[in-house]
Amino acid sequence: MSSPQSVDFVFFGGTGDLAMRKLLPALYHLHRKGDLADGGRVIGVAREALSRDEYVARVREQCSKRIAAAQFRDDVFDAFARRLDYVRLDAGQPDDFKALATVLDTAGAEVRIFYLSTAPDLFAPICGNLAQASVVQPNSRVVLEKPIGRDIASARTTNDCVGRSFTEGQIFRIDHYLGKEPVQNLMALRFGNVLFEPLWNRTWVRDVQLTIAEQVGVERRGRFYDHVGAVRDMVQSHLLQLLCIIAMEPPATIAPDAVRDEKVKVLRALDPLHGTELGARTVRGQYRAGVIDGKPVVGYLDEPDIPADSHTETFIAIKAEINNWRWSGVPFYLRTGKRMPERTAEIVVNFRAVPHSIFPEALGTLQGNRMEIELQPEESLKLYLTAKRPGEDMHLGPVHLNLDFGEQFTTAPMDAYERLLMDVVRGQLTLFLRRDEVDAAWQWVEPILRGWEAEGSRPKPYTAGTWGPAASSVLLGRDGSAWQEES
Amino acid sequence: MSSPQSVDFVFFGGTGDLAMRKLLPALYHLHRKGDLADGGRVIGVAREALSRDEYVARVREQCSKRIAAAQFRDDVFDAFARRLDYVRLDAGQPDDFKALATVLDTAGAEVRIFYLSTAPDLFAPICGNLAQASVVQPNSRVVLEKPIGRDIASARTTNDCVGRSFTEGQIFRIDHYLGKEPVQNLMALRFGNVLFEPLWNRTWVRDVQLTIAEQVGVERRGRFYDHVGAVRDMVQSHLLQLLCIIAMEPPATIAPDAVRDEKVKVLRALDPLHGTELGARTVRGQYRAGVIDGKPVVGYLDEPDIPADSHTETFIAIKAEINNWRWSGVPFYLRTGKRMPERTAEIVVNFRAVPHSIFPEALGTLQGNRMEIELQPEESLKLYLTAKRPGEDMHLGPVHLNLDFGEQFTTAPMDAYERLLMDVVRGQLTLFLRRDEVDAAWQWVEPILRGWEAEGSRPKPYTAGTWGPAASSVLLGRDGSAWQEES
Repeated sequence: MSSPQSVDFVFFGGTGDLAMRKLLPALYHLHRKGDLADGGRVIGVAREALSRDEYVARVREQCSKRIAAAQFRDDVFDAFARRLDYVRLDAGQPDDFKALATVLDTAGAEVRIFYLSTAPDLFAPICGNLAQASVVQPNSRVVLEKPIGRDIASARTTNDCVGRSFTEGQIFRIDHYLGKEPVQNLMALRFGNVLFEPLWNRTWVRDVQLTIAEQVGVERRGRFYDHVGAVRDMVQSHLLQLLCIIAMEPPATIAPDAVRDEKVKVLRALDPLHGTELGARTVRGQYRAGVIDGKPVVGYLDEPDIPADSHTETFIAIKAEINNWRWSGVPFYLRTGKRMPERTAEIVVNFRAVPHSIFPEALGTLQGNRMEIELQPEESLKLYLTAKRPGEDMHLGPVHLNLDFGEQFTTAPMDAYERLLMDVVRGQLTLFLRRDEVDAAWQWVEPILRGWEAEGSRPKPYTAGTWGPAASSVLLGRDGSAWQEES
Repeated sequence: MSSPQSVDFVFFGGTGDLAMRKLLPALYHLHRKGDLADGGRVIGVAREALSRDEYVARVREQCSKRIAAAQFRDDVFDAFARRLDYVRLDAGQPDDFKALATVLDTAGAEVRIFYLSTAPDLFAPICGNLAQASVVQPNSRVVLEKPIGRDIASARTTNDCVGRSFTEGQIFRIDHYLGKEPVQNLMALRFGNVLFEPLWNRTWVRDVQLTIAEQVGVERRGRFYDHVGAVRDMVQSHLLQLLCIIAMEPPATIAPDAVRDEKVKVLRALDPLHGTELGARTVRGQYRAGVIDGKPVVGYLDEPDIPADSHTETFIAIKAEINNWRWSGVPFYLRTGKRMPERTAEIVVNFRAVPHSIFPEALGTLQGNRMEIELQPEESLKLYLTAKRPGEDMHLGPVHLNLDFGEQFTTAPMDAYERLLMDVVRGQLTLFLRRDEVDAAWQWVEPILRGWEAEGSRPKPYTAGTWGPAASSVLLGRDGSAWQEES
C-alpha cells in the first residue's frame, strides 16, 4: 500500500502541538514501514526563526518521546530526517511564500500536500498566498483541520477562499475520529454482513449515545476556547460526524461522494432545535472548581484569560432526532465536556429489550443488547449479549463479544492520523468532509447558539470531575433512559 | 441445584453399553458434585446373573476408564458404590419383578426413576410388569430411550402400553442431543437477546444444514440395524428434534408444554414427501467397501448378519421444507450416514448474502454469514462474519465469534446425560419428547419409508469414507447451495 508517487508534505503550524504530537510521529511510522515513496520531503513551516538542524532536533526529541521504544530507532529517524526541512514563514506575508516556492521547486516531489494545522482564520490567507506564489499544482492537496468557521457565514467565507485556490477534489477537511479503527470496523460490520443492517433502525434500536469527554480544562487556550465553546469545538465537528457514520443509509459504494452524500442526508434530516425545543432538548454547563484524579482544580471562570462573566459552555448534552424513516423517534444523545471524570470518546448503540421474556426471572436478568464503540482512550468495538452460563441449568448471564478481531488477524492496527495521511497521499476522499457537510452541520448548530444568545441565559454550573449538570441525566431520564455509566 | 428428594434409579439394561458408557459415569459425576440427595440408590437390572459385588466391580472398571483421571477418585467411587445394587431380571417374567419390588421397598427413596435402556420391544412388557408389581408410585418416572416404534402404528402401541402404567407427565422420552450445551446456548441466544430472532426467518436465512455423521459401520449390531436403517435410527429422532429446536416459534415460556407445543407445530408443518417429491428430495445410500482413517473396511452387504440383498439405507439426505410463514421456501437439508469421513454432528444456519456489496472486490470477499452449532465431537457455537482487517485500508476478511462464552464464565460445562438425568430428578420435562411429538415425527417419516418400499428401489452405493452418494451434493447443487464442507 505504499504511495507510488513521491510526496512533499508542507505542515503549516509545523512547530505546533498537533504537528509535533501526531502528524510528524505518524509520518515517521509511515516512513519506517516503507509506505512513503523515496524522494518526498516533510517541510515544517512556521513563524519561528529556526534552522533546519534546529527543527530536526526538535522533531527528533518529540518523536522519541511520543513513539514506543520498540519502534523508535535512531538510524530509522536519521533516514526519516533526511526528508525534513523547515521554512520560516508568516502566513500573512505573501513574500514569505516565495521562499517556500523555491524549496518546493528544488528537487520537487510529484505531489504537494499542504497541511494547515494553524488557527482557522489563517486558512484563507495561506491558501490565497499559496496560489499567488504559484505553488498549487493540479494534483496538489490541502488538508484543513477543524474548526472551519464559527458559524454558517464564516464557514462559507473560509470555504470560498480555500475554493479559489483549490478545487473541491483537492480539499481534505480532516476529522481524525473518522480515521479511527473502530469507526472503520463499524462500516465493515454494517455493510459487509447481513446480520447487523436489518437491526439498524427504529424497530430494534432504542437509543444511541455519543460521548466525547475530556479531563482537561481549557489549559493555556482560554482565550481561544472562550470564543468557541463546546458546541463549536466538538458538536459541530466530531460528534455530528460520528452521528452521521452511525445513522447513514448504506451508500451504493464506498466511493467518496457516495458516502458523503449519505452523511449529508443525515445532517439535513436532523430535527432543528428551535424555540421551546432548545430548552427541552439541550443542557449547557460550565465547570466550577472541583477535584480531578484526587487533585483540586479551579473553575472555568477562574481559568487564565477567561472573562469573569463568560457564558461560554464547557459542557453540552443534546437530544438529537433524525427525521427519516429509519430513525424517526430514536433519540441520539450527544454530549461533550471538559473536566469530566475521565477522558473518553465512545458510541453506545442500545437495542430495545426483547419484546417478551420466555425465561423466569429466577434464571437471571436479560441484559439489554448494546454495541459499544470506544474511540478513546482505547479503540474497541464490543457487542453485549445475554448468554447461557455453562452448567446444568438455563441460567443466563451477561457476556460481550469483541468485534474488532485483533486476535484473529496478524496485521497491526493503525493510528488514525497515519491512515488519514495515507488517504491524502492516495487522493482518497471518503473519510474527509465535503463542503456541503460542513455547511449542513453549521445549519443545525447555529440556531442552537443563536437561541442561547437571544435568551441571554447562562450555562448551568457543574463541579469539575462530574459528568456535567444533573439536568443531563434528567434529559435521558425523561425518556426512561440513562447515560451508559449511570445505567 | 441438588435434588431435595432422595431418588432410586433403576436401570433396565443396566449392564448394557449405554448404561456403562454414559449413564453410570454421569451419575458418578452428579454424586461427586453433591447433586444427588443422600439415601438414594442406583440399581442395575439385567438378565445376567451377577452379584452386587460383581456389578460394582464392573461399574468401577467402566467408570475408571470413561472418567478423566482428575475427576475419578477411588474414595469418591467407594462412596458412590454404596448407592449401587443389582437385580437379575428377565423383562418378560412378571415374577422377576417381585425381587425388584422387594429391593425398592427396602429403605426406599422418595422418588423412583425407571430408565429403560433396552431394546424398544421390551418397553411395553417392562412397564406392564412394573405396574403389576405395584412399584410405580404417583411420583415415579420412566425414561425411554429411542427408538419408540418402527412406524406410526408400533409407536402408538408402545406409547399406549407405557401409558397404561405411567401418566404422560411421568414419561421422559429422552433425546440426548437436546441436552447438549450448544443446543441450550442456542435457545438462550435466540430468546434472551433481541439481536438474533429478527434474523431467524425466510427473509435472512438461506438454508439450514443438519448433519449427523458416524465413522463406524454397523459393528456387531447388524441384525438390529438392518431392520432399522438411517431414517428410523437418526432422522425420526435426533435430526427432527434438532430441526424443531432451530425452527420453532418463540414459546411463551420455557415451561415443558409451551416448548413442546411449538416443536409439534414444526413437525406438523413439514412438507410431506409424497410421490415424485420423494425421489426429488431424498437421496438414499448404502456403503460399499472403502477406506476409513487409512484402513480398509468392508461394505455394508459384507457386514456380519446383513442379508446379501438388503435394501436398508445407511445414508440419507433429505431436503425438508417447513410450510409456515417463517420458513416457507427455506430448505432444511438433513443428512446422516455411517462410514462417513468423520464423526460429527452439526447444525449450520446459512444467512443470505448481503443484497449488494458496497465494497470493491479488490478489498476482499464478503463471507456469507453463518452460525455453526457443533454437537460432536466438540461442543461449540460459532458465528462467522466478515470484518475489517486491522491496518490502513478497508481490507475485509473472515472471522468468527465464539458464542458459547466458556472463557467468560467460571462454571464448567455439563455433559448432556448429566443434565438430562437431573431434569428427570427434578421432573423438568422441557427437554423430553411428548407423545404427540413422536407421533408427528413418524407421520412425516413413514411415507418416506413406505414410498421406497412401494418403488422397490435400492439405495445408491457410496464408498465408505466419503460423504455419501454424489446425488447428495447434487440435491443442494440444484438449489445453488452446497454442504458446508464442500462450499
